[in-house]
Amino acid sequence: MIGWEDVYKVVVAMVPLYVALVLGYGSVRWWKVFTPEQCGAINRFVCYFTLPLFTFEFTAHVDPFKMNYLFIGADAVSKVIIVVVLAFWAKWSGKGSYCWSITSFSLCTLTNSLVVGVPIIKAMYGPAAVDLVVQSSVIQAIIWLTLLLLVLELRRTGLGFPSSNSDQDLEGSADNTGSSRPAFWCLMKTVWVKLAMNPNSYACIIGLVWAFISNRWHFEMPSIIEGSILIMSKAGTGTAMFSMGIFMALQEKVIACGASLTFIGMILRFIAGPAAMAIGSIAVGLRGDVLRVAIIQAALPQSITSFIFAKEYGLHAEVLSTAVIFGMLASLPVLIAYYAILEFVP
Amino acid sequence: MIGWEDVYKVVVAMVPLYVALVLGYGSVRWWKVFTPEQCGAINRFVCYFTLPLFTFEFTAHVDPFKMNYLFIGADAVSKVIIVVVLAFWAKWSGKGSYCWSITSFSLCTLTNSLVVGVPIIKAMYGPAAVDLVVQSSVIQAIIWLTLLLLVLELRRTGLGFPSSNSDQDLEGSADNTGSSRPAFWCLMKTVWVKLAMNPNSYACIIGLVWAFISNRWHFEMPSIIEGSILIMSKAGTGTAMFSMGIFMALQEKVIACGASLTFIGMILRFIAGPAAMAIGSIAVGLRGDVLRVAIIQAALPQSITSFIFAKEYGLHAEVLSTAVIFGMLASLPVLIAYYAILEFVP
Repeated sequence: MIGWEDVYKVVVAMVPLYVALVLGYGSVRWWKVFTPEQCGAINRFVCYFTLPLFTFEFTAHVDPFKMNYLFIGADAVSKVIIVVVLAFWAKWSGKGSYCWSITSFSLCTLTNSLVVGVPIIKAMYGPAAVDLVVQSSVIQAIIWLTLLLLVLELRRTGLGFPSSNSDQDLEGSADNTGSSRPAFWCLMKTVWVKLAMNPNSYACIIGLVWAFISNRWHFEMPSIIEGSILIMSKAGTGTAMFSMGIFMALQEKVIACGASLTFIGMILRFIAGPAAMAIGSIAVGLRGDVLRVAIIQAALPQSITSFIFAKEYGLHAEVLSTAVIFGMLASLPVLIAYYAILEFVP
Repeated sequence: MIGWEDVYKVVVAMVPLYVALVLGYGSVRWWKVFTPEQCGAINRFVCYFTLPLFTFEFTAHVDPFKMNYLFIGADAVSKVIIVVVLAFWAKWSGKGSYCWSITSFSLCTLTNSLVVGVPIIKAMYGPAAVDLVVQSSVIQAIIWLTLLLLVLELRRTGLGFPSSNSDQDLEGSADNTGSSRPAFWCLMKTVWVKLAMNPNSYACIIGLVWAFISNRWHFEMPSIIEGSILIMSKAGTGTAMFSMGIFMALQEKVIACGASLTFIGMILRFIAGPAAMAIGSIAVGLRGDVLRVAIIQAALPQSITSFIFAKEYGLHAEVLSTAVIFGMLASLPVLIAYYAILEFVP
């Protein structure tokens, strides 16, 4: 049984995140410290400096030769389940659409694992669990965000993809598909360029390369380099949450997309995602704390990157913005509820 | 004797500061990440959020009942020596002026003790030495910066102060002095209001009040509050150095005030200041590591606040800007030289 002191430990880990969030919000809404243009500066500072170094710092300390492959398998299975369900829904349901499938996939699977996940899961299950979260964040950054970007590019170019208005004639799209093979590589190039422009993907890939090299030949990062990275990466959590607070303050409304879409978004994020993860985890035979970590990390707040992509491609950005903001606010009670319930899992 | 590994430890502590500085400089000069208006945002973020919490975090953990009073006494003696010398120079030397005395006092005594001093002195003499640096930073913030502000206000209002142009008639200033007593309190009010508007003084005073309370009644800060402060204060060093890098990038020239003034500034900062401190320390009988820390902390780079005040009051701002920038760049070899030489002190 978890007692009050366990719950308190989790609260102690989460409240500072909210404090940084509120400082960011208040700096714009209440104290007028920043002009709207200046808000962009804080965002850029986080996006180009503190967050990539923060990601690098975690990724570089993963041991790629000792990853928990069962855990990663469970993650993959759960995502495949979601993709299959959404594809069926898009094809066979009257209400289904490919565009909404993409957004639903984001909502179900993409989490803010490093900034929010690491401190919470460390408070819940200790440092060993942090390793798992970092592993899943690496997989998310390298595989799932790339796939999401690919699908969004496919949709934008209308290539190999039923059009977003389901009433367009099917012949047209069939013709498109015919001429799409050389264009596909052109598309992949766009995706890679976009990823190469994203400082966080950079950080993740370079971190992973370093992790491979250092674990293969057993050498450590010189303390002078470690220190130089830490000086900025230590600022990662605080500045990222502060910047999210500024983002909230700049929105006209906290709930940008209406109550029913918000509700559906929250169901997908906090129920469907963890449920799929539970199925995947049980299917591959996870048990104990690894199973608990797998489910909890699927119930973390929405990934901010998923919102950035949605905004860039003009696909339901207001739904994802709401999921990021409202999800962050709702996550404290939700995660504590999961934490308490998962104690009863064998 | 200190060996190469000791020097390397100091280099390891200093290089990350320079890395953050170069990132800040490069973000403006090379990569054009920020527009000039946006640079102000980073500065405000540091000035209102990360730096005050950073100062608070250190100050709140001082034990005011166990300060090293000999060390503080040495600090006071050294500052009195400097004040007396400068006052004599201003009054009796042909070249002397009260304005240059104020600037020289800043250059001789005010250091960047927390951001730069703490990591360096920790690498040199361990955590016990950090306590001393924090104590001297508290005294600097509460006593010496207040006095500096008072003197600058006095000069601005022309009250109780020989005019800055030494050729003005002495009768006039004598008259001024006669009517100055009620005006003095008005002035003190201005000084207090200015200090109360400065988030860093706030942080220092609140931190000190907390330190008194917690050490008097022996209770610790609840971990939830500690964590909420740490999330931003951890960003202090990195963001402060980054912001100083931006400040450098925005200057037209690194050396704004000409070579000879730069040279004099460096002599005052790195030779006269530590020399006065050495005299003060020996006078009160400091020995061993405490003596070494006293001298080294007097040779730290120039305090940024002293530049901000100089700019606000229009008094030799370009000299202090050069001292801040050039002093930071020069401090690595200078501090290592002091570190090596001070080994021979008994």
